[in-house]
Amino acid sequence: MYVAVMGYGTVGSGVVEVLTKNHDSIVKKSLHDDIAVKYILDCRDFSAHLDSKKFIKDFNTILEDPEIDVVVETMGGIDPAFDFSLACLKKGKSVVTSNKELVAAKGLELLNAARENNANFLFEASVGGGIPIIRPISQCLAANEIEEICGILNGTTNFILSKMIKDNLSFDQSLKLAQENGYAEKDPTDDIDGHDAARKICILASLCFGNHVYPEHVYTEGITNITLADIDYASSFGSVIKLIAVAKKCSGGKIYTIVSPAIVNNASQLSGVDDVFNAVLVKGNATGDVVFYGKGAGKMPTASAVVADVIDCSNHLIHRKDFGWDASSENYVTDYLDAVLSLYVRARAKDPVKALNSLHKTFDCATVLTRKNAPADEIAFVTPAACERDLLEKIRGIDEIEILSTIRVSEC
Amino acid sequence: MYVAVMGYGTVGSGVVEVLTKNHDSIVKKSLHDDIAVKYILDCRDFSAHLDSKKFIKDFNTILEDPEIDVVVETMGGIDPAFDFSLACLKKGKSVVTSNKELVAAKGLELLNAARENNANFLFEASVGGGIPIIRPISQCLAANEIEEICGILNGTTNFILSKMIKDNLSFDQSLKLAQENGYAEKDPTDDIDGHDAARKICILASLCFGNHVYPEHVYTEGITNITLADIDYASSFGSVIKLIAVAKKCSGGKIYTIVSPAIVNNASQLSGVDDVFNAVLVKGNATGDVVFYGKGAGKMPTASAVVADVIDCSNHLIHRKDFGWDASSENYVTDYLDAVLSLYVRARAKDPVKALNSLHKTFDCATVLTRKNAPADEIAFVTPAACERDLLEKIRGIDEIEILSTIRVSEC
Repeated sequence: MYVAVMGYGTVGSGVVEVLTKNHDSIVKKSLHDDIAVKYILDCRDFSAHLDSKKFIKDFNTILEDPEIDVVVETMGGIDPAFDFSLACLKKGKSVVTSNKELVAAKGLELLNAARENNANFLFEASVGGGIPIIRPISQCLAANEIEEICGILNGTTNFILSKMIKDNLSFDQSLKLAQENGYAEKDPTDDIDGHDAARKICILASLCFGNHVYPEHVYTEGITNITLADIDYASSFGSVIKLIAVAKKCSGGKIYTIVSPAIVNNASQLSGVDDVFNAVLVKGNATGDVVFYGKGAGKMPTASAVVADVIDCSNHLIHRKDFGWDASSENYVTDYLDAVLSLYVRARAKDPVKALNSLHKTFDCATVLTRKNAPADEIAFVTPAACERDLLEKIRGIDEIEILSTIRVSEC
Repeated sequence: MYVAVMGYGTVGSGVVEVLTKNHDSIVKKSLHDDIAVKYILDCRDFSAHLDSKKFIKDFNTILEDPEIDVVVETMGGIDPAFDFSLACLKKGKSVVTSNKELVAAKGLELLNAARENNANFLFEASVGGGIPIIRPISQCLAANEIEEICGILNGTTNFILSKMIKDNLSFDQSLKLAQENGYAEKDPTDDIDGHDAARKICILASLCFGNHVYPEHVYTEGITNITLADIDYASSFGSVIKLIAVAKKCSGGKIYTIVSPAIVNNASQLSGVDDVFNAVLVKGNATGDVVFYGKGAGKMPTASAVVADVIDCSNHLIHRKDFGWDASSENYVTDYLDAVLSLYVRARAKDPVKALNSLHKTFDCATVLTRKNAPADEIAFVTPAACERDLLEKIRGIDEIEILSTIRVSEC
């Protein structure tokens, strides 16, 4: 069986490397006598590369070659990845991708094209790098009605928060360290603002609940406003701060989904997930809590997930895997402000005693937090659980305080 | 598609319950218009049961009914589960089982029968209850050469050890508590002596490394000799004691596998796995460390794993899943005493100063441990890493000590 790889960047070159390095055991697991890379599509010059003969610049070479059964898309971005993938599927070629942006924005269209043309569109590598998540959810947990999925889906932000928590570094210092270690890009916006995690929770939510969720419908908050003061207060509350992505079933067939920093209790399986590691917690109605944990990124883990999909395609060239989700109706995603939760609040109060009095008049049972060396005019507390909109209104109604930060308390 | 369930115990009744409760979403995930239970085989009387018409006592009813495509085996034990399963496979019916004893002892024969008769033999529920493990290993990590697999595979012993560690209860008290909570059977031998974990590591090792490993070849030690003194010393060493099952590739195509209590460093992902939870850590050459975590037993988790296999069968009735392992040569499993590791030792010494002198003459860099309220004649230490056989010889050669316990130090 012949494979074409589109995009010879970090993941694409890793795919070629894994297919070469583990060639024999991979072929053994497939139904074919051989699995080989025939073309590598990349606009850059690889004439000095050992495999230079495989490099091509014209996508049509792949599209028009009937020997190519599986196309690996590791270009990233939507354009031209979407057009190329769609064209391949329409020709009945299976497509395997690690491109979360593509799956989150165009998954439904590509899955439909795969279905109509009896091809496979697989994307295990798009969430959680090398951690098996997509297939376990779609197959192993198939007997479950999944009620909720939440997780730490972005390694960069988890590394930064871990450094803040463990080494007392500031956000800026931690970000710099992440960049020096190659864990954050020069322009880290996509990661630190939560967009990368939002794309991944879209993919997971679409898969778990059966209807496409688009990134623009996921309320997304990043970690740039998290301070060491918040981390200290969380610690006094027996918790850590993590960037958590959640998708949960609501009444009326709707779902709640959000990406935001959250106060995670130390008893949660997610609290101990540090550095660049990712973890996904799936709550099924039969299986209970199941957690998948591992490195969520990196060349070889991600490449190995892509290759696992290539093997799966090779075993399903004729009998396509039925896999995917449907379109979603308008307002499928609920307004995040409707959700019931507790909020952590840090605020400035000229007269803390008066402020706490007001606080206790507003909430029957708010938990007041303390930390070492807090300024005299700082207070922090956790509200009881209620609708977020109401909580915010009540908090903003406390005249004696100036709100510095609010962070959701996670139920994971 | 029609299913027959053999054995209406905890798991079998759970399977029927999951198939009923989540019927619509299950059918949606299959390629069939319906999935229904036609027969339930059980020798007991269920004439008063709501579904009494489905209960049968004669296995041949299932075997001879061409409408039955998938047979669920949840009887437990080898006899008659093996004969029944083999007969079904020979008729081309797929078999799904949760029976680890059957898979560990007869997996190779049943997989071969499945292959020869174009049927599926699936057993996701045999390891880790509802935690997806078998399929992620065989499919998602297919692009990896797996180097090692280790885990906490038995919930009963993990519950007992957790109670000893956290609540300072003795082994006997913890076992009693486990029995009262329904986590341990009246006769707990299979669990506390490590046999249950040994069966599971056989299945995982067979799958990961491609050749059948039989329980009788796995050196197995239970937890009955673990004392609170050992737990305290482990704690002073920054570790906890867990019943760990390991299988690891060795040179010459052989494998090392063992089930025994082990000193697990607090930095390990396995150290925080408490109570009845299980976790499996898989080390792939491309993906790095991946951990699967969840409840390793229980009616509904296990039943949901069985049903996921039923769904998978329903989608592969014609195109069989190729899945399994080969026979193993003699001496495929190495002598466990050849492995290189460190040992924790607790001993009695009439003259501790003299004993420690001897110890330091024997080992260049043994780590001496302390604990509160230790008897004056007790010493404990951790040896440097060396071949277990040599270590034992050296320790036994220290005349000044009487060995009370030795526990392996885990590398997981």
